Amino acid sequence: MLSGELKGTVVITGKQGIEELHRTSFYGRPKGDDLELSLAECAYLIYMKKINVQCDGEELDFEHFFIKASNIVKNFELFYIVYKDLRGRGYYVQPSDIGFRVYPRGGHPGKGPAEFLVFVTSERIPLLLTDLKKHLDNSDNKKKRLILAIVDEESDLTHYEVRKITPSGNSVLRPTTLQSNVTLLEDRCMVWEPDSSKMLHKEGFFGKPMDEGHLQLSLIESCYLMNCKVLEIEKRDHEKLDFAAFSRIAASIESDFMIKYKVYEKLRNSGLVPKTGFKFGTHFRVYKSFDSISHSDYLVHAISHDHIFSLQQVSRAVRLANSVKKEMIYAVVSDRIDFIVLGRVRL
Amino acid sequence: MLSGELKGTVVITGKQGIEELHRTSFYGRPKGDDLELSLAECAYLIYMKKINVQCDGEELDFEHFFIKASNIVKNFELFYIVYKDLRGRGYYVQPSDIGFRVYPRGGHPGKGPAEFLVFVTSERIPLLLTDLKKHLDNSDNKKKRLILAIVDEESDLTHYEVRKITPSGNSVLRPTTLQSNVTLLEDRCMVWEPDSSKMLHKEGFFGKPMDEGHLQLSLIESCYLMNCKVLEIEKRDHEKLDFAAFSRIAASIESDFMIKYKVYEKLRNSGLVPKTGFKFGTHFRVYKSFDSISHSDYLVHAISHDHIFSLQQVSRAVRLANSVKKEMIYAVVSDRIDFIVLGRVRL
Repeated sequence: MLSGELKGTVVITGKQGIEELHRTSFYGRPKGDDLELSLAECAYLIYMKKINVQCDGEELDFEHFFIKASNIVKNFELFYIVYKDLRGRGYYVQPSDIGFRVYPRGGHPGKGPAEFLVFVTSERIPLLLTDLKKHLDNSDNKKKRLILAIVDEESDLTHYEVRKITPSGNSVLRPTTLQSNVTLLEDRCMVWEPDSSKMLHKEGFFGKPMDEGHLQLSLIESCYLMNCKVLEIEKRDHEKLDFAAFSRIAASIESDFMIKYKVYEKLRNSGLVPKTGFKFGTHFRVYKSFDSISHSDYLVHAISHDHIFSLQQVSRAVRLANSVKKEMIYAVVSDRIDFIVLGRVRL
Repeated sequence: MLSGELKGTVVITGKQGIEELHRTSFYGRPKGDDLELSLAECAYLIYMKKINVQCDGEELDFEHFFIKASNIVKNFELFYIVYKDLRGRGYYVQPSDIGFRVYPRGGHPGKGPAEFLVFVTSERIPLLLTDLKKHLDNSDNKKKRLILAIVDEESDLTHYEVRKITPSGNSVLRPTTLQSNVTLLEDRCMVWEPDSSKMLHKEGFFGKPMDEGHLQLSLIESCYLMNCKVLEIEKRDHEKLDFAAFSRIAASIESDFMIKYKVYEKLRNSGLVPKTGFKFGTHFRVYKSFDSISHSDYLVHAISHDHIFSLQQVSRAVRLANSVKKEMIYAVVSDRIDFIVLGRVRL
């Protein structure tokens, strides 16, 4: 059998390795006359009984190699689980700094570019949005699809594809300025006048009718309509509120009001109809038009640019969104708004 | 039309109110010759054009009564929305300190007891577990079903029923003590010996086979099996770990390890098979037996007794659980473990 030598963070084989492992099956990377294998590749090759590995003159079996590798490479177990899964399903794989470059079916190193960049992580490791955006920019530059491979505590694997998206719809705001007054109650607003109530609901799918004459508006909707000069809002003591005063009150009721508001405004201005996503545990459910108000297309959650994802929560959000045939979108609020969609994929 | 007078936090009508509103439709509570109405009842009766209300000699229309009531009663809008919904669907309703007592269909005040205690709240109000348990004990004592009525930002209503439950299954732990060693790698354990691997997986649905010979165990599973004296665990440098040392390491990897562990142990000891619930965003998915391992019955999330629920997260968890035909259970860890199930109901 072929033999290799563990040296630092790689295993080196001679020329025979290039012939037997690289030429035919695209393991490792030729370096001059040698072949260099990553520890994950090598563990897999030991398991497949294709190589013997020595270290300091001693042969390492699978168990001893694995324990050694786990001491050398941070998160080695995760890398091995993902690598074995990909190879096991017939993909050709090369290491990259965040995990792996994976070639499309039918492709391999030397024949066309890799299709995926696979970022390997564990359910337990919090994911910084700043890191995710870096990986996303990087994979966009390299024209590859970014995949998150998440290993759970029982070593099961879930793959998510991450993409930028620019959601847009075809609904145009039609309401005209109201003459009647709107009152801010405790944490929602009320339109008291029947014709105004009907118009707002019909022409923009704003609010929820409390009965035939009265319309309840959420804080976000009220704030947006005030900002569009459709209506004026007063407190229960009839004091008029301007945008600054209203949003200050709203932010004291909902701590994330301002980032939610910015996303709401962006969605509305993109021809979309956002409504509360409470029943889905997200900020918004979003309709592409209000002619098809029976099924919403997206779930959108507003997050700030320094957000840290809990992968457990991402998992729940994406799974729920997909189970109701919607896309799960995170809206990242900085000086602008970027939309990122996360969806489960089967590679 | 009948007339009433706003006095403090109630509206008082004369004898005619008892005849017209209480005898036939069970509004209000007779006090001597008068009928006392709550503000939510009264707003509804104004809307139904069944009463005129005066305050300081002036008549209040719906708008002015509503604004006044919203100034007097905290969360009046929420109470009104829930009250109107219940009455509108034919239920007879009386106030209670947490919201409403609701009579079963066919029942009414004076004819049998109320069936539900409805706790009224908003998606924005964090729910203290200690409060929820108080309401649950209270409704259990009164032999009523506890319902959470949650009003979202757009005034939509969702009802959840809350119940205590004692989950149990019929799986008996069969593994015998292993002779082979188990290694704690970075954040999971590995069984290296093929027969032990097979036995643990087959006899208790422990772990996940990495390949034909090697079994990966989660920290929780390893800790449980160690505690049951099925296996011994050593570190990569072959140092043996006892329960205290192992759980200290595990808790440094997963901050909520100890409460998760207690729940896992309780579930296993109740004849159930818990596995990770990562894909569902909860701690565990739970099988009633490992003869029917294709469909898990419960999703279980471990929480400490001072937990504070975000209703947005509860909503997402319950909706996801129900969409995959499982029950969402919270396991409350104090000096004992109580299980609470939350499920959507349509009243």
